[in-house]
Amino acid sequence: MGSDPLSLFGRRLVQLRREKGWSQEKLALESGIARSYLGGVERGQRNIALLNICELADALAVPAGSLLEFERVEIP
Amino acid sequence: MGSDPLSLFGRRLVQLRREKGWSQEKLALESGIARSYLGGVERGQRNIALLNICELADALAVPAGSLLEFERVEIP
Repeated sequence: MGSDPLSLFGRRLVQLRREKGWSQEKLALESGIARSYLGGVERGQRNIALLNICELADALAVPAGSLLEFERVEIP
Repeated sequence: MGSDPLSLFGRRLVQLRREKGWSQEKLALESGIARSYLGGVERGQRNIALLNICELADALAVPAGSLLEFERVEIP
């Protein structure tokens, strides 16, 4: 787990998913994104593109921008 | 110009770029992203990925999430 944008995004996604009490499987089902791909995103291994970011935001019922709010909590 | 996420993102990018008084050329230089690719992004023709979104945000000195704030101004 690093502080690069992909890892930060992955951790933010895990956080939002857990706030809903959802498993990766549930989020995969709701977003239409493969669970194995989601796992890679959550581990910071995938450079996810805008349309999929929006699919995840829609599934989680959050504004797309909130998935990128990790920049506000970066370690100084 | 549609209301799909790629077009909305493109328009938001144009808005933030113009707020700085920057040309596409200037943003390309500052972000390290090719001007021709930026043009496609601004026209909503490119499914830009997270690392490039973060490069643009850094260049524009805005939080990455603010590039996705178009969802807050969608037409009802």
